Order: sequence, then structure tokens, then C-alpha cells
Amino acid sequence: MTHVRNAWHVAAWSCDIAAEKPFAISILGEPVVIWRSASGAIRALEDRCIHRLAPLSLGRCEGENLRCLYHGLLFAPDGGLLEIPGQDLIPPKAGVRSYPVADRHDWIWVWMGDPALADEALIPPAVGTSDPDWILGYGQLDYAADARLICDNLLDFSHLPYVHAQSFQAGPEFAANPPKITPVERGVRVTRWLPADVGNWRNPHDVPVEVYQTYDFLVPGVLLMWSANYPEGTAARLGDAIPAMDDALSGLNFTSQAVTSTGPGTARYYFSWGPHCRHGDAAKRDGMMKMAGLAFAEDKTMIEAQQRVIAMTPDPKVMPTAHDRGVTLYNRLVEKLARHNPSELESAA
Amino acid sequence: MTHVRNAWHVAAWSCDIAAEKPFAISILGEPVVIWRSASGAIRALEDRCIHRLAPLSLGRCEGENLRCLYHGLLFAPDGGLLEIPGQDLIPPKAGVRSYPVADRHDWIWVWMGDPALADEALIPPAVGTSDPDWILGYGQLDYAADARLICDNLLDFSHLPYVHAQSFQAGPEFAANPPKITPVERGVRVTRWLPADVGNWRNPHDVPVEVYQTYDFLVPGVLLMWSANYPEGTAARLGDAIPAMDDALSGLNFTSQAVTSTGPGTARYYFSWGPHCRHGDAAKRDGMMKMAGLAFAEDKTMIEAQQRVIAMTPDPKVMPTAHDRGVTLYNRLVEKLARHNPSELESAA
Amino acid sequence: MTHVRNAWHVAAWSCDIAAEKPFAISILGEPVVIWRSASGAIRALEDRCIHRLAPLSLGRCEGENLRCLYHGLLFAPDGGLLEIPGQDLIPPKAGVRSYPVADRHDWIWVWMGDPALADEALIPPAVGTSDPDWILGYGQLDYAADARLICDNLLDFSHLPYVHAQSFQAGPEFAANPPKITPVERGVRVTRWLPADVGNWRNPHDVPVEVYQTYDFLVPGVLLMWSANYPEGTAARLGDAIPAMDDALSGLNFTSQAVTSTGPGTARYYFSWGPHCRHGDAAKRDGMMKMAGLAFAEDKTMIEAQQRVIAMTPDPKVMPTAHDRGVTLYNRLVEKLARHNPSELESAA
Repeated sequence: MTHVRNAWHVAAWSCDIAAEKPFAISILGEPVVIWRSASGAIRALEDRCIHRLAPLSLGRCEGENLRCLYHGLLFAPDGGLLEIPGQDLIPPKAGVRSYPVADRHDWIWVWMGDPALADEALIPPAVGTSDPDWILGYGQLDYAADARLICDNLLDFSHLPYVHAQSFQAGPEFAANPPKITPVERGVRVTRWLPADVGNWRNPHDVPVEVYQTYDFLVPGVLLMWSANYPEGTAARLGDAIPAMDDALSGLNFTSQAVTSTGPGTARYYFSWGPHCRHGDAAKRDGMMKMAGLAFAEDKTMIEAQQRVIAMTPDPKVMPTAHDRGVTLYNRLVEKLARHNPSELESAA
Repeated sequence: MTHVRNAWHVAAWSCDIAAEKPFAISILGEPVVIWRSASGAIRALEDRCIHRLAPLSLGRCEGENLRCLYHGLLFAPDGGLLEIPGQDLIPPKAGVRSYPVADRHDWIWVWMGDPALADEALIPPAVGTSDPDWILGYGQLDYAADARLICDNLLDFSHLPYVHAQSFQAGPEFAANPPKITPVERGVRVTRWLPADVGNWRNPHDVPVEVYQTYDFLVPGVLLMWSANYPEGTAARLGDAIPAMDDALSGLNFTSQAVTSTGPGTARYYFSWGPHCRHGDAAKRDGMMKMAGLAFAEDKTMIEAQQRVIAMTPDPKVMPTAHDRGVTLYNRLVEKLARHNPSELESAA
Repeated sequence: MTHVRNAWHVAAWSCDIAAEKPFAISILGEPVVIWRSASGAIRALEDRCIHRLAPLSLGRCEGENLRCLYHGLLFAPDGGLLEIPGQDLIPPKAGVRSYPVADRHDWIWVWMGDPALADEALIPPAVGTSDPDWILGYGQLDYAADARLICDNLLDFSHLPYVHAQSFQAGPEFAANPPKITPVERGVRVTRWLPADVGNWRNPHDVPVEVYQTYDFLVPGVLLMWSANYPEGTAARLGDAIPAMDDALSGLNFTSQAVTSTGPGTARYYFSWGPHCRHGDAAKRDGMMKMAGLAFAEDKTMIEAQQRVIAMTPDPKVMPTAHDRGVTLYNRLVEKLARHNPSELESAA
């Protein structure tokens, strides 16, 4: 499975990294330890002591440093070895790998590729759960499936009428016509106008509305989507132009989602969702999160079953359909970005 | 492990396939979905959508067809692709494999080999649980063991005095003398006369009787056995001739059993047992099934332990004994039938 | 992983082998059945019937012999095949492997290498739990880790201040200075003098004492350690000489520990500990065992985590430190002893 190493991978919710408590996660099959130092800096190192390969995440934060709690080796934030108890000479180049890491939009992001290329400007513009403009709930799910299968799912909403007919009350409109797909910097954009009749949960009015829905899906697996209701006729009037959020009649909401490959056949899926503060309140957010909880469990059931079928298939092949344009475009981008760094082509996580 | 693909494999109890409820099973490591259509027809398809390999068993029956509930592709009973939501052109030859399937003797049978060779006359003549001549109980067990180990067990009853001394009150007679073994069409026949003293559960009389016991073991792993009590001296009088069921003194009973390879190292074992309606009633059947429940759990304990030992043995070899004639004859037949279709030799389920 | 086959491996606590109850264990990935015969002799055979590879540990003791309870084959204590029910001819050389076995120091020891080399004088001089001079508690733990990782742990006590700061109240003295390491016959000796201030659990006095601590670590993974308190100044006075147990002020105690490789990535760890009968009582033993229970759980957490990191590391390499002298010396000895028998180099358990 090809993955883009030179990208910011979501490693945790910011609020889950407590002060001076090391946190362990695998990303692309590599063990990573993340912690907040005494000064509040966020740090990420290879979670594997050079001495005997014990995980540093079982270690102890000491000021800005992290001590392995097996035999006491002390590592600097850049991974350099500072101390070996009982030994005066420290091999000068000894140390573990350090990863560029950022605390942004209430997520912790880790750059898994060449540190020289780690540009914080490439962090996808997710909406953080603490953003005052939005009222967001959040959660996460661990998958027994390759990250790619979850990305494929998120890049093709034609599954909504089949997987989510109940939870999201998704009608055939999601499968009847493909959305508009356009390439964007490091991702693809998926945009559509949908009708919402009176009675649909999206539509609080007593007349039909038009729902604008748009998301960017960005490497290595980040979905950023907003949608809102507009008066009938808006789509025809605007053509390809993007409606202004401020002109929304109602229902303006945002969801940020991230798929992180933790290793071959496993992934972690993070998500937040909720209304704009002028379009809803905590009760509305809770209703939406309840719906999302049902829907994301439906996805998990299907995708993990799909993974099991793939695992028992000697030479698995897919047959793309008209709805796979977004999937195909995105996966080609992944291949292209991975080729930039030949070592990534071999990355098998 | 060699298996006979060109054979009818038991895939389910007929009563477990409800109307329009897809049922999933692996046979020889292949995912199969079975369902009863709106018209009542029984159907079996490859349980793997050609689009993205989601299991069709999570799908929805629509009339005679089956719809994948991931992205909505619709399949005909012959596996042909009928519909791709949102796409007008259907690739003309696209589809999934369909399997010949039959609902017979209260079992669902699936032909895993060349459909052109699927002859319903080859379905083993099991006695169905609804047969009015017999009063049968039934059950099934999932094994963490190769199907072959269960077949080996059923082909050699010399294990009875050791594995089933308690449950079946089996005495040394099962091991003291090998039974008569003869080849039959697509299987082997195992026949013996056994003494049953007063007090043995098989013998309800106050004089000793002779028990005739005969079974055919047929590819791909179906055991069909009857036994009954006869007056002392019958064996000597008849020689090799088969006694008539109608002449039985008492204890006439029938068991149908089937071993299905679900994949490498796993199998499902189906069984029914009970008295002839003139030789017992529901209470007798219940007593017999209780005994069988104990006995089949004894087999499972031994065979799964045997499988674990084999798994930790680099180059496992067996040493056949005099009692292995049936095992050897049957396994040679399996090799021969598998050779008919070279692809079967590679089948590793 | 290299292991010394030509060594006595601890297979069980003596008291866990009941009369005529076969006991199963894997050693170096080989299935072994151990039992006490009718005459009380301890026996060990390959736990794999030559007929169809069923485990003999599901079998039945009959006098001095062991019968497989699958098809009834009977084996002599030397592994020779005595009986095949229903078959007159017994292949003269047929049988299973028998292992030299000894019941010594309340442990059952199995020699996994060439039986001709099995010399009971090579059994490490552990202190049995029934030894009247000592008041010992005991226990065992199953590890999801290679035996070697546990041996490495026991050969380097510099982990004590980090892993066992709480449980054993180990101070930095265990890591500050390496102990004295010397080769001994089939192992290494680790010896040190440690200060114990007033208040330390080791020191029941109102003045500081000096603790002498010494252990031999012997193939295939047996640790035999004693320690005791001496008056301040004893270390300087004695130099390299070994203090007499009889001269101990207080705190004389003994622990016997054994690491048995049960297979690749798994091990069983046996331990006993307690005071000399003139230096403590059952209450003291219970307090020590409670402490050991906490400490050995700390080791298990660390070592199993280390094993998981190693498993996800493509080409795991260690960086030895000054404290690894014992580890390195011992592992070189293992390589050397394994080379004596070329087949051992291939042993991958």
C-alpha cells in the first residue's frame, strides 16, 4: 500500500496529550511517542530506545527530555542521547529519530517524511473543536482495515443511499449523479447541490431548499467539509460559483475528519462535526453526533467486512465505476506524491 | 490440502436460510452468499462485489436479485451485473461467480467445481430432518481444524473405545477388529457386526443382540450411517449379505453427517441423528442427541489439539495402522477425483 | 534465536505433576508430555503420537506406560511403541522421542538435547521450595516474549532504579556502578556490595548496613541468588572475598528463578523467594512475595512491550552499554554451547 510520508498525519486529539504524559501511537507501522514537555512544547520521537528497543512511551518526562524507564537512558527533544546511567562516554551520534510535530486545530500532527520538507503551511485547514465559530462534537474509531479503504469510502458518497439510508436518511440523489470533482493542491475537491424536501432532517423550513455540500480530501487522508441550505434556485443562479457561507438560509455545519494509517490492515479515524454557532446549538450538535455515531458504525461494519474479503482473495482487483473518479484522482495523487521520495514507494504500512 | 471441488458441499441447514435474508459462509476458503429469492428459489453467488470486494451477504434481496449495500450494484441470480447506480453503461460480461446450489434433504448443497458437471444425482442420499420415517435431532460445530482431520476421524471408528468410552459406552470391540471396508461410487463403505450385551444402551432386550452398523462416507465429507439390532446368529447366517431394515429387532437409527472445509485450518461439521419412527420417539431421540453432544465435543477436543500439534510440527508425517484402510482408501479417492480437474490440486483450503 | 538444547530446562513445579496425570508443555517449540508413573517415576516424552500426531498429554497413564486416547496406541517410558489396538505387528523401531527428565529441587527438569550428554550433575543447584533451611514462596508467569529478553533483563540489574523504583525501592546505586561480572561453569556470576541506609526495607537495623548480593545465571536461563546484610566496613575488609552466609547480620534470603523458552515469542518464568529460616518467617516471606509480585509484573509489562516494538522493527539492532557486560558474556556462552551441536544453531524456538 502506498502512503504519502511527506505529509502531516493526525496522531491524536490535542486534549488527549496531557502534560508530561508520554502517548504512544503507530503511524505507517512506525512506533511514535508524543509528549508535552515541562515548558509546554509538543514533541514526537521514535518510540524505540536505541539500547534494547523498549518503548520510550513507558518512560518519564524530565523537563524538556524523555527518559527510558527500562535502563534509564535520557533523550533530548531532538532524539539525541544525553545520558546512559553508569556510563560516562555517550556515543556522540547516538539517538532516536525525531519527528516534526505540530499542535494545530486541536489535533496533533506528525510529519512522517523528510524533516527538511516539514512545512507547517501544509497542515490542512481543519476546524478545531475549540473554534468559537462552530459548536463541534468529536470522536474516533479504530479500524481493522487498511487506511486506504476508509479514504476510498470518504471519496465516494454514492455509498450514502445504501450504507446510510437510515442514519443519514440519504436518498438516491447521492448515487444518481456524480458530484463535481476537481483537483486541488494536495487533494481533490468534491462539490454538489442536493435538493432537500420539507421533512428531511437537513431542512428546517416549510419549503424545499437546496443544500450545497463541498469537501476537500487532502493527503494523507483529511476530509474538510461544510454544507448549508440555500433558497431554491440558488444553484441555477450561481452556476459553478461557490455560495457564501454568510448567505446560508440555515443548516451551516462543518466536519473535519482524518484517517491515519497505523500499520498494514489497521487505521484510526478521527472526526468532529457540528453546526455554525449562528445555525445551531449544543442540542443540535448532540443530535448530529448521535446520527454520525450510527453512520460511522455502519461504515466500519462494511469496510472491515470488505477488508476480510480482500484478505481471503488471492489477487484482489477492483472494477471502478463512474463514481470512482474522486477515488482514482486521489489515489493517483498519492502515487505521484509518494514517488517524490523513492523510499516511500517501499513504505508498506 | 487436496479437496474435491467437483462435489456438493453442505453449506447450511435448509431451515437456516430465511426468505430474502442473505447468508454468508466460506467453502474451501471462498466466500459464498446464499439466499432464497422472492419466488423461493435458492441461490448462491460469490460473496464479493466486483466493484470494491464488499461482501454481498451484507446486501439486500430485491425480487430475484441481490443488491450490494455498499455502492448499490445489483446482481442477477446468475451473478450477472444488472445495475450500477449513477452509471448507464453496464460492462456486458461483468459479474460475480454463481454456484450451482440445491435444497435437498434439509441441507443446502453448493457445487464448488465446474458448473457444467453439477449433477444433482450426485447429491448424497442423506436423510433429511423432516423425513417422516425418522425422528431426528440435529446440530453443528465449528472446528479450528482442517476438514481432513474430521474426515479421518469419521473413517476410523477404532477411536471409539478411547475417545468415547464414556459418552457412547464404546467397548474394545470397535478397535479389536477392523470393519469391512469396500469402495463405493464416490466414497467408501464401512460395515461391521458388533455384539451388544444386556445392559448396553444399544440393547433394550434381556438377551444379547447383534448390532449391524454400516455407513457410506462420500465426497466431499458426508457420512450416512444406519444401525439396528438383530437376533444373535444373524451375522453368521447372512455372511456378507446386508440385513433388511425391516427385519430389525429394535434400535434402528440413522445419522447423516457432513464435514465442510471452510478454509485452511477451519471446518464446519453438521449432524443429525435419531431413531426410526417404529423404533423410538422424541424422548429416545433427545437421549441420543445428548449422548452425541458429549461425544462430538470429545472429538472436537481431540481433533483441535491434534491440529495444534500438527501446526507446531515442521514436517508432519503419519504412521498408518491396520485401522487406517478406510482413511487411506478415501484419501486416495479424493486425490484421484481432484486430479480430474488440475486446478483442484492447487486448491489449498 | 539461539538456545542451548544440551541443558536442563525447567518444565514444571514438581508439585504440579500429580500421579498418573499427564502434563503438557512446549519447550523450545517442541511439545513435551510429563507424567509420574504408577511406580512414582517421572517421565517425559514427545507429546505427539506417531500415528496421527494427537497429543499424548490427552492420554491415560497405565502402570509405567502412557496410552494415546485417540486410537489407543500404548507407549513405554522410553517412547517405544508397545501396542496398536487391532494390529498384531508392531513396527520394531516405532516410537516417540523420550527426554531425560529429573525431579530435583522441587522443579522438573527436561534435557532437550542429546540424551547421551544428559548428566544430572549439570542440574543447577537451585534451592527447592521444600528446603527446610529456607522459607520460600513461589509463582510463575507466562510471557508473550522471547525467553532471551527475560534473560537479558535478569543479567542486568541496572534496570532496577527505573523499572522497580517503587516495588523494590531500588535506588540509583544499581545503575551507578556496574557489578563485578565473572564467568562460571555454564554461566556468569554477578556480585556487588550495596549500601542500605536506615529505613530501607532491606535494613532492619538502626544503623546503615552493607548488602552483599550475588547470583549465578546459568544455561539455559536459571538465576540463583542470595543476599544478606553485613556490618559497615565488611566490603572493604573482605575485598573480593565472599562473605560467609553464617556471618550475616540479618536479611539472608535466596531466590531461584528459571526462564524456559516455550517457543518463538513465548516463555514461562518460574520463581521462588524467601528468607533463611534464621532470618525470617512466613510473614516475612509473604511480604517479600508481595513485593516480587509487583516487581515481576513491572518487568512483564516492559519486556512484552519491548517484544512488540521488536516485532514491528524490520532489522532490530541493540546498542550495548557498560551494563551489558553480563548480557554479552552470557549470550556469547550460549552461542558457544549451541555450536557444540550444529543442529542447535538452527533451533529457532
